[in-house]
Amino acid sequence: MFVMDLLEQLPPPGPDEALETLLSRDGVRFERIVSTGQASPPGFWYDQAETEVVVLLAGAATLRFEEGDRLIELRPGSLVEIPAHARHRVEATQADPPTVWLAVFFR
Amino acid sequence: MFVMDLLEQLPPPGPDEALETLLSRDGVRFERIVSTGQASPPGFWYDQAETEVVVLLAGAATLRFEEGDRLIELRPGSLVEIPAHARHRVEATQADPPTVWLAVFFR
Repeated sequence: MFVMDLLEQLPPPGPDEALETLLSRDGVRFERIVSTGQASPPGFWYDQAETEVVVLLAGAATLRFEEGDRLIELRPGSLVEIPAHARHRVEATQADPPTVWLAVFFR
Repeated sequence: MFVMDLLEQLPPPGPDEALETLLSRDGVRFERIVSTGQASPPGFWYDQAETEVVVLLAGAATLRFEEGDRLIELRPGSLVEIPAHARHRVEATQADPPTVWLAVFFR
């Protein structure tokens, strides 16, 4: 049984986002992502084989989807489903206080 | 593609918890649960066939697990894995402001 306070014991800010796999069960994987101002490199698009559902727990972030050039602003409590192969990028994340995401991946 | 601010448009408080299925994909189901002071009835234990992972987004709650008579206090950002058939109950939830849970169910 896994128990964790996702807003506690944040990793120290670094050049990259901090990814941590929390639990992985029956093909469903939960990750905590802590962002401190990072964004996807210019021209980069994620194209993932898994469905990803993200929930913002703290901070702020902006996602962009290629289809329709859609921008989504996330604040705490925002949930976004990213279907498999939906090309997207992280336009911006709040640095301080850090931005904390819960991401759930599955096929 | 599903997008929602889980801390917005909360249902009005009622006698029961408000459950809402947000999305259901490939055997993984996401629900928002809004509690306003409810607790499990005395002597009642949940015994679920699915694994459930809950994350508290707002408010406060207390879960009790039968095994080891373990109490877990949840605050915003708390994540708890409830394995299938782990008997548990909700001892208490904060009423005002409401307690908002994201629950992810899968097998």
